[in-house]
Amino acid sequence: MKITILTLFPEYFDGLKKTSIINRAAEKGLFEIETVNFREFTEQKHGHVDDSPYGGGAGMVLMCQPLLDALESVRTENSTVILLTPQGETFNQKKAEELSLKDHLIFICGHYEGFDERIRSFVDLQMSLGDFVMTGGEPAAAAMCDSILRLVNGTIKEDSSDDDSFSTGLLEYPQYTKPADYKGMKVPEVLLSGHHANIAKWRREQSIARTALHRPDLLESAGLSEKEMAFAKEVMEKGQAPE
Amino acid sequence: MKITILTLFPEYFDGLKKTSIINRAAEKGLFEIETVNFREFTEQKHGHVDDSPYGGGAGMVLMCQPLLDALESVRTENSTVILLTPQGETFNQKKAEELSLKDHLIFICGHYEGFDERIRSFVDLQMSLGDFVMTGGEPAAAAMCDSILRLVNGTIKEDSSDDDSFSTGLLEYPQYTKPADYKGMKVPEVLLSGHHANIAKWRREQSIARTALHRPDLLESAGLSEKEMAFAKEVMEKGQAPE
Repeated sequence: MKITILTLFPEYFDGLKKTSIINRAAEKGLFEIETVNFREFTEQKHGHVDDSPYGGGAGMVLMCQPLLDALESVRTENSTVILLTPQGETFNQKKAEELSLKDHLIFICGHYEGFDERIRSFVDLQMSLGDFVMTGGEPAAAAMCDSILRLVNGTIKEDSSDDDSFSTGLLEYPQYTKPADYKGMKVPEVLLSGHHANIAKWRREQSIARTALHRPDLLESAGLSEKEMAFAKEVMEKGQAPE
Repeated sequence: MKITILTLFPEYFDGLKKTSIINRAAEKGLFEIETVNFREFTEQKHGHVDDSPYGGGAGMVLMCQPLLDALESVRTENSTVILLTPQGETFNQKKAEELSLKDHLIFICGHYEGFDERIRSFVDLQMSLGDFVMTGGEPAAAAMCDSILRLVNGTIKEDSSDDDSFSTGLLEYPQYTKPADYKGMKVPEVLLSGHHANIAKWRREQSIARTALHRPDLLESAGLSEKEMAFAKEVMEKGQAPE
């Protein structure tokens, strides 16, 4: 897989490239991340890429020409072009899985007040990181790339992602590591028992209970059995998870 | 305001610090961003900060000691401690506004499979960037910091944030800049008219129409008048915005 990021701040992505898991996978040749500064494509004087909005108002608006010329220079028929905008579809794990199967993703990071509306008609997808505003699309591109790239075959150990929050449709169960007693706070006995069936049962219950308490909206589509759904409802009524 | 980020990858945040708007505001002394590598606090051999999970399973779990000792070294009574986890409350613009008023935010970035459950009881808030999994909390911290810091007084021009998507409870209206004709794609005439009242009316209608089409879930709490709500419903029925 190849990812191309169109941005005015290529250096923003140095950090992403350096994080251990992403960096190791890139070195293994599993994917390539490329940044393109679309300021280099402008035909305006002084390297300008934005201008004031028609109709008045605060802030500057990114112009069509520099961004779209940069896009045409990297786009092929295998590219999926994603515009990052608060107006787009909200990114989630399902979207990450879909996008992890593509050959070439191009992310467009806006900056300043926004971009010329006409740019939207040149992209395949409009995506939003969530219901909040940032100074530009860079943090959204970095977060989405991380989420997508960890799903590319070989980036992390296969079995390591199976139990993640959202992958099973539920929040993850509680995890503990040494010491068994930290300042009086103890690890649940079942996890020290070595009894695999009981451990699996406890973890499944904890996953369901947490989801019921913190994200009941996820329960419907999590494929719970009738008995598990009854258990989830019981947890919601009591307002707490079993020990 | 001060932001402290507890992370195993301090270099991830070099990019954030360099982006124009954030960097300029930091230089003006509006806030300070500090990163602390909690690996430096470990009492384990070889700088280890994680161990295998009790009860078995794939991946490694972050231990209590290094992270919590690092936390205690930076925490004061004015600190708000935020653990980044897919299990947390979903971050949004309202949360960004609340957090932008705090004195000192401490973000804790997990990595690897997860962190010891007992760590949760030492934090004030658990926040999630959205319904997807990443290799660590770093991209989430960077996105939230950007969103919060742009709201700190003086970071961006006051009036510049008033019309943002979500600030008014609606998606933003379309923006256009020069040229008026880009490869046959024209700017709506009203924006070239110089008639301020008509422009304001058109923008308000476009904001409502877009929200109705793409994010109808936001309409209820957007404080629309009865007439505006009727207009939103009409747009939804027709499935398209007026010209």
